[in-house]
Amino acid sequence: MSESTEAFELVLFGAAGDLSLRKLIPSLYCLHLDQRIHPDGKIIAVARRNYERNDFLDLIKTSIQEHISDELFDEDTWSAFTKRISYAQMDITDSACYEDKLKHFLNDPSESGIHKSRIFYLATHSEMYGVICQHLYSHQMLKGKARVVLEKPIGMDYESAIAVCKEVDKYCKEEQIYRIDHYLGKETVQNLLALRFANSIFEHQWNQRYIDHIQITISETLGVEQRAGFYESAGAMRDMMQNHLLQLLCMVAMEPPAQIDAESIRDEKVKVLRALKPIAGDQINANVVRGQYQEGSLNGQPTIAYRDEPGVNAHSDTETFVAMKVEIDNWRWAGTPFYLRTGKRLPDRACEIVIQFKEVPHSVFELISPSTMANKLIFRLQPDDGIKLQLCEKRVGKGMSVKPVLLNLTAEHAKKDRVPDAYERLLADAIEGNPTLFLREDELLTAWQWIDPILKSWQASGTRPEFYHGGIWGPAAATLLLARDGRLWQENH
Amino acid sequence: MSESTEAFELVLFGAAGDLSLRKLIPSLYCLHLDQRIHPDGKIIAVARRNYERNDFLDLIKTSIQEHISDELFDEDTWSAFTKRISYAQMDITDSACYEDKLKHFLNDPSESGIHKSRIFYLATHSEMYGVICQHLYSHQMLKGKARVVLEKPIGMDYESAIAVCKEVDKYCKEEQIYRIDHYLGKETVQNLLALRFANSIFEHQWNQRYIDHIQITISETLGVEQRAGFYESAGAMRDMMQNHLLQLLCMVAMEPPAQIDAESIRDEKVKVLRALKPIAGDQINANVVRGQYQEGSLNGQPTIAYRDEPGVNAHSDTETFVAMKVEIDNWRWAGTPFYLRTGKRLPDRACEIVIQFKEVPHSVFELISPSTMANKLIFRLQPDDGIKLQLCEKRVGKGMSVKPVLLNLTAEHAKKDRVPDAYERLLADAIEGNPTLFLREDELLTAWQWIDPILKSWQASGTRPEFYHGGIWGPAAATLLLARDGRLWQENH
Repeated sequence: MSESTEAFELVLFGAAGDLSLRKLIPSLYCLHLDQRIHPDGKIIAVARRNYERNDFLDLIKTSIQEHISDELFDEDTWSAFTKRISYAQMDITDSACYEDKLKHFLNDPSESGIHKSRIFYLATHSEMYGVICQHLYSHQMLKGKARVVLEKPIGMDYESAIAVCKEVDKYCKEEQIYRIDHYLGKETVQNLLALRFANSIFEHQWNQRYIDHIQITISETLGVEQRAGFYESAGAMRDMMQNHLLQLLCMVAMEPPAQIDAESIRDEKVKVLRALKPIAGDQINANVVRGQYQEGSLNGQPTIAYRDEPGVNAHSDTETFVAMKVEIDNWRWAGTPFYLRTGKRLPDRACEIVIQFKEVPHSVFELISPSTMANKLIFRLQPDDGIKLQLCEKRVGKGMSVKPVLLNLTAEHAKKDRVPDAYERLLADAIEGNPTLFLREDELLTAWQWIDPILKSWQASGTRPEFYHGGIWGPAAATLLLARDGRLWQENH
Repeated sequence: MSESTEAFELVLFGAAGDLSLRKLIPSLYCLHLDQRIHPDGKIIAVARRNYERNDFLDLIKTSIQEHISDELFDEDTWSAFTKRISYAQMDITDSACYEDKLKHFLNDPSESGIHKSRIFYLATHSEMYGVICQHLYSHQMLKGKARVVLEKPIGMDYESAIAVCKEVDKYCKEEQIYRIDHYLGKETVQNLLALRFANSIFEHQWNQRYIDHIQITISETLGVEQRAGFYESAGAMRDMMQNHLLQLLCMVAMEPPAQIDAESIRDEKVKVLRALKPIAGDQINANVVRGQYQEGSLNGQPTIAYRDEPGVNAHSDTETFVAMKVEIDNWRWAGTPFYLRTGKRLPDRACEIVIQFKEVPHSVFELISPSTMANKLIFRLQPDDGIKLQLCEKRVGKGMSVKPVLLNLTAEHAKKDRVPDAYERLLADAIEGNPTLFLREDELLTAWQWIDPILKSWQASGTRPEFYHGGIWGPAAATLLLARDGRLWQENH
């Protein structure tokens, strides 16, 4: 059964790049496999290199097989999937290419009589967004139902983000622009909304009266890998904090929208971003910790220092770790801090949101472990998906002592359903024209505006990240950031 | 490991009776097996019939094997258990028997130098409590650490309950008297306290602002069986409602005690009983439904009418079913009704407490089954033990529709631990001198006092129970009791 209602054509710029090969094309294959996209949906892969179509197909076949689980791949499905795919070799800065190499792949309603959805997915550096949109516009490709999907990061600071936006805005209307943050496509993030807004027992307590604090962690075990060129000028703040962690914070902190539609949800998210307490001046050192990994060891293997990574400046001051204490100046959250952290070469790969409720006001039981008895909700986004609730229950048998137990609130998923990758969800939404899980321009710019003073201060002060050894949870200052408030980072489960 | 700290002697009156054989002796065997009672703990079985000790041991061996699961029984354990057991044939109304047949089994501290706990368990009709206590007292058996355990029901109405209490009070101090309600010994009831008072997320919402209503059901598939003699003069109101259902209501409704000790908990329970809104006059027909089973069918087998049961008067007006709408006139519960029901020959054997939370104030999701989406907590006491929570979660995949799921909050038990029978818990508590889960006199009498006007009115008015067919959930009026308020009885899970 196809759930998609319209024929479409998807033009993928950067089709031979890392993101396309690892995520976008395998996700398109899975959408095809599950019949979640219209049978008449063409994919036009655009890249600079002069592949024969068959060579390109070989390339993506290998990549699909590598990135999806074995039981999802079979030759018949693959063969049917290839029928959707065209390959266009193009220099995307050259206007003539659009006319000569791209246009003939696209549907012309005046000839075919069919109106298709048209999606341009720009999996390129954000500096190219302006020029691509300019050419698409000048060749009249953005008419009608055309949409443009923009990958993050958009800009490297507030000014450059504004510049990219202004450029794209010249050629596209806001409703045509789909700014992706793939963390929003994760099943658990959407289930967070369901848990909050479909269950009175949680939403009634979703505020500073009942919640002690909230933690959001995105940790990687990997180092900078092949991305030194980009990462050296970005760092963890731009690469992860400004987008993914702030977006997750918005989903946790936002007020209940009146409807679950794009504008209502994005209105609420941007209200959260606007209510973030500014961190500037003296507050920066007190509330933001940055680190850079040194040599260390992970899983018994020695790891090298960031400064020794290929492509990294030997005196680099780029941060590979950031931890922040963030406060939200509104009625719901005043006094309940959000602790965010992200970094590379940490002990575990994980993405977790922890809602730590306050302790019971008075304990009548003998406690097995008094310091950790408060209820908490744990939303896990990777590597596995799921929601857990820590409760206290009575120990079976004699007496009345209680012990904490961790309950899986989404046990059913694991058994029955394949949890789709975030990109599957977002690609399907982009193809169908549902912008709910994409960023609006004001969200993007408000996030940059809030982060900007910190970036500027780091640059101006000439201070440096603290070193931490690969394989530990960042610099000691990150532990102190919570310990100062009498709190600890959540251990992973 | 023995968890009990003191040697003891337990004198069991009514040792050859139904309750002793089905529950008390198998529970003592299990306590022995699990080493939860002191190795120097003697059991003196008292009954009227003149058994040889070996014949009595054969009788209880058969009964233990019948009432516990096979893997708990082995001959070595049984053999060791029998060393605890003495048998005393006695006419319990005959004072001389206490001196001649019982005294020599009991420890004399002045001779032995050992101070043992001494427990008299009266598994007899409550009319006998006074005379037994009188004889125990006159033979100086109630001195020191002696305790008396009284089985329910105590009395048949308010006046007779007072009479029994007054009689027992002549010979025993209140702290010596352990009034049993075995529903309080059930693991899930104690876990209800743990869930309420060790988890802020539940107790914060445990009131009329967040809870729509509460249901308590104790249903049996059996008919009156061998108990017609007692049941004819009792009925469901005295047999179940006045004690078990009101006790469960107290555990659900009570304020958090300052400590988990006997006096604190019983103070809170009696406050609930005193706050029950009186049901009298016109209110009785509007809020209380009584029924009597007719012929019917259960599990495909025909069942006979109550009036056709052996030992039942052919024109009996005894109720075999009661349903009530109960209100609590206090700050916490005003406006949140408690619906209680109990009966014989109903479709399922179950004991369940359902906490039905209010609906979310505004639903933003497409609902799969809108009428049943509110959160609920379900405490199940029999036949299986456990606590379940109904939540709404997102359906995996496309869109944002939510569906209800029922989560087991006590999944760990089932796997790891044998859940002890309620009588094991209560016997161990009585042996150790922990009265927390036993009723205080004021609780007992307050419950009778509240029920009494209803019993009196039924008798005076000459009205009769409505008939219902065996195998359905009582008379139609029981459904109407909730339907009038726009509610339904919980379906069993």
